[in-house]
Amino acid sequence: MRPITDEKLEKVVSFLDENKIDVLFIFDYENMKDINMQYLSGHPMDALVMVTRKGELFLSPWDVPLAEKYAEVDEIFNIYDYESSAAFYKFLMKEKFKKLRLTIGLNSNIPLSSYLQFKRMKPFVKVYNHPEKINRLLNELRTTKSAAELDLLKGAAEIGNKTILEIEKFAQNATDETEVDLDLKIRQTMLNLGAEDVAFPTLVGSTPRAHNLHCHPAASNAKFAVPGLAVVDFGARYKGYNSDITVPISFGELSEEQQKMRDLTQQAYDAALETLDIGVPLWQVHEAAVKVIKDGGYSMPHALGHGLGLTEHDAPILAGKPKDPKALKRWKEVKAENGMVFTIEPGVYKEGLGGQRLENDVILWNDKVEVITKSRFITV
Amino acid sequence: MRPITDEKLEKVVSFLDENKIDVLFIFDYENMKDINMQYLSGHPMDALVMVTRKGELFLSPWDVPLAEKYAEVDEIFNIYDYESSAAFYKFLMKEKFKKLRLTIGLNSNIPLSSYLQFKRMKPFVKVYNHPEKINRLLNELRTTKSAAELDLLKGAAEIGNKTILEIEKFAQNATDETEVDLDLKIRQTMLNLGAEDVAFPTLVGSTPRAHNLHCHPAASNAKFAVPGLAVVDFGARYKGYNSDITVPISFGELSEEQQKMRDLTQQAYDAALETLDIGVPLWQVHEAAVKVIKDGGYSMPHALGHGLGLTEHDAPILAGKPKDPKALKRWKEVKAENGMVFTIEPGVYKEGLGGQRLENDVILWNDKVEVITKSRFITV
Repeated sequence: MRPITDEKLEKVVSFLDENKIDVLFIFDYENMKDINMQYLSGHPMDALVMVTRKGELFLSPWDVPLAEKYAEVDEIFNIYDYESSAAFYKFLMKEKFKKLRLTIGLNSNIPLSSYLQFKRMKPFVKVYNHPEKINRLLNELRTTKSAAELDLLKGAAEIGNKTILEIEKFAQNATDETEVDLDLKIRQTMLNLGAEDVAFPTLVGSTPRAHNLHCHPAASNAKFAVPGLAVVDFGARYKGYNSDITVPISFGELSEEQQKMRDLTQQAYDAALETLDIGVPLWQVHEAAVKVIKDGGYSMPHALGHGLGLTEHDAPILAGKPKDPKALKRWKEVKAENGMVFTIEPGVYKEGLGGQRLENDVILWNDKVEVITKSRFITV
Repeated sequence: MRPITDEKLEKVVSFLDENKIDVLFIFDYENMKDINMQYLSGHPMDALVMVTRKGELFLSPWDVPLAEKYAEVDEIFNIYDYESSAAFYKFLMKEKFKKLRLTIGLNSNIPLSSYLQFKRMKPFVKVYNHPEKINRLLNELRTTKSAAELDLLKGAAEIGNKTILEIEKFAQNATDETEVDLDLKIRQTMLNLGAEDVAFPTLVGSTPRAHNLHCHPAASNAKFAVPGLAVVDFGARYKGYNSDITVPISFGELSEEQQKMRDLTQQAYDAALETLDIGVPLWQVHEAAVKVIKDGGYSMPHALGHGLGLTEHDAPILAGKPKDPKALKRWKEVKAENGMVFTIEPGVYKEGLGGQRLENDVILWNDKVEVITKSRFITV
């Protein structure tokens, strides 16, 4: 399946036409990952996809049989059929693009070294001058999902939901088990449920580590069932699409302050969901949660949420307005709209007491807000 | 621990001085990974490290407490102490660099968008014109390892060696178990042995999938114990350093051709190790293995090996000379030298029959070649 819809692909082609770009080159390799390659072609990794001004899609993958299985493009080229990459490019210019000098578009996330290589081909290649516009266009297109993409995101959410039940069981029975043991249990559960991988390394923060923004390592050999407030942050990758869930867990009798941290997290989560609706600016949803936590005497050291899709950190972001006047000037308000999928994940943390974060994934569709994951506070 | 030695750091500082660069900026964030940040600072992720022409190391990490634990630098700056990143840079210019216009060095693997941002700061910032020289310098420094780094690489290898025994046991007892089951077993074994993570997604290729360069997904729900030739490619990450091992497994009675594939792999491996010695050009080691496989009527669809270190694909690469005359002109011969650590991994593959690859990690030290992992052919 090619994730991008025909309608959105047409927007890419119009952009190329308006800006007189003959062909867009999107690279995705080990040291220059670009999820837009998969978005435009359906091929999962390690390839160059080309979109021409005429609307053709060409793919030059490292692994041709893999591409034949996954890619939905007009033509697949085997680079090993050519003497060198220079010979391959020569062939493209002559036989496919039929031009002596080509205007190419590059995404602004390309490594500087690759950009400089293209600049050196000046006699044959002109690089379009505003690569950041290409990045912006592709990100905007990926910010809303198609019905087919939503189905896959729901699939990833469903695997997550079944895994929450296993986490609850594990927490209730945990005595000597470590954070790593839960990490392995979650992975096993999700892979057996059909996940192709975890969406990101599972973060298991028992009370002494749960206040960290980054647990490093993500799961340690520390015991899991420690009195206080713990978090488990995990997700499934299903047919390329990701879920992202945090389960907050209380172990044993909580102190007054720990109870307050937990209550504030719940109230901030409720405030965010009450504020969220089609057409509402996303910074207001963030601020609704932040206000609750601030009024309670804490601060939230991260954004309220982020988009989900082919990456576990897609657009949009649910964060406050920038404070810096210059940054504010460049900033663009984004409103909630149909097709968006993002996390809502307020949290309260304090070293020594642990941390709480309640994270669920929401879909906006048919003018409605639907929470598709089922995280909740677990008490042991 | 800061991985880079004082002696090598001095080379970076000399480079800055010779090229009149006031400060080198190395960024490592989610969408712009650069392992050199960790190499220069010891901090594991998500930070900007600065090396000044005077030899100072400054770090601006996303997670300050994490940096306080891991980084070995002169000063850590908390970006949240400043109103905006612009204010932080202003502070650095005025208080730390004491300059009105700064010449900065950027690594050529930086995203084009970040480079363009710095170019826009023209009144205050001049970007050094040859970013690819910075990349080359850092890669060269990382190509040979210090004694302290070798110890960590041996630690990662040792975890791998113990895991080989578990793989053998698993294979001998496998009936209905899937590729995913072995994936989980390997992860569990390595994490329990003290690995902080797997070095890369474990690739479990049972006979129907073992011919793939990429198994996608890396492990599937297919049964593992299928007659023929399978491969298991895995590694441990230990305190930041990686091992990389492939175990070739034969299930059941092999056909004549399968036996030949297996024998060729062993002979190619032996030929490579016989050729390898201090001072030998690495392309000759690659060619020694390729010749055996070619003379046997097969071709090897990948390079013989690659360096190991803070990444699972460090320099040097063990590959043939480029065939394209222009590429050959740019190419530089690399000879085996003390401090290098790399894989030797010849393989023979054929769809329907499966694949065999024997991969071990070698260290060059005290003018000797030492194989530090213990993969071998396993027969079930």
